[in-house]
Amino acid sequence: MRYYEDIEVGETREFGEYHVTKEEILEFAEQYDPQPFHTDETAAEESAFGELVASGWHTAAICMRMLVDGPMQDRASMGARGVDELRWKQPVRPGDTLSIRTEVIDKRVSESDPERGYVDSRLEGITQDGDVVISWIGLGMIARRNPGDD
Amino acid sequence: MRYYEDIEVGETREFGEYHVTKEEILEFAEQYDPQPFHTDETAAEESAFGELVASGWHTAAICMRMLVDGPMQDRASMGARGVDELRWKQPVRPGDTLSIRTEVIDKRVSESDPERGYVDSRLEGITQDGDVVISWIGLGMIARRNPGDD
Repeated sequence: MRYYEDIEVGETREFGEYHVTKEEILEFAEQYDPQPFHTDETAAEESAFGELVASGWHTAAICMRMLVDGPMQDRASMGARGVDELRWKQPVRPGDTLSIRTEVIDKRVSESDPERGYVDSRLEGITQDGDVVISWIGLGMIARRNPGDD
Repeated sequence: MRYYEDIEVGETREFGEYHVTKEEILEFAEQYDPQPFHTDETAAEESAFGELVASGWHTAAICMRMLVDGPMQDRASMGARGVDELRWKQPVRPGDTLSIRTEVIDKRVSESDPERGYVDSRLEGITQDGDVVISWIGLGMIARRNPGDD
């Protein structure tokens, strides 16, 4: 298990191979984002997108799944405070296969809780063609191995 | 239909009554965020949360559903560029009923596309007890009624 002390600013990870089906795009959108270009193929063709595209929140959720299965597996994660600069850069389409790339960009010990480390990471979600479809800065919390060492 | 010109900075909306069940928390988490405190009641009791809690991305998706059903219904929305300052302030638990509150905080015409208005709004997701569980600043795009009027 990797603790706060084991994480280095600048370290990068690549992970995942998530195949996005039309059925999953429709199912997520019908529940959480029922705009016509996410739920109706015909309406989507007449929209600015020109075809059915995944909800941006669905794309985020897919990247979260890859984070949990990959970079977070060996981390003593204590959850996340939030996310900055979430951007939807290109639409995700049925048949796309996504992966993620993460980079640790900052780390520091919490001032209010010395058992808690703050680790900020940039995430990018990427298609099979190398196009970045989503990015954000995750504000993570990771347990310290030796909280007394300050 | 309300266009960019019809939106006023400072306008607020309150909307929604979304009942969050244990079954939905488990279903979302098993697909998109399989951390034990989202997918396993016993493990959740032993976690820092002390009980099963919804994935933060699930909470975001629920708020998106209320945005689509409410404030976005009468808007000429052209999608969103992204979200800033997404924060998970308190966990969402089985049995919570959520609503949203939105406030328009900025608007301006796109410099690259005069048919497009940028409208930034603060969103808060709120429990039945008035506790804010999530907040973000949505970077929306809304069509202009009269693109030539510059």
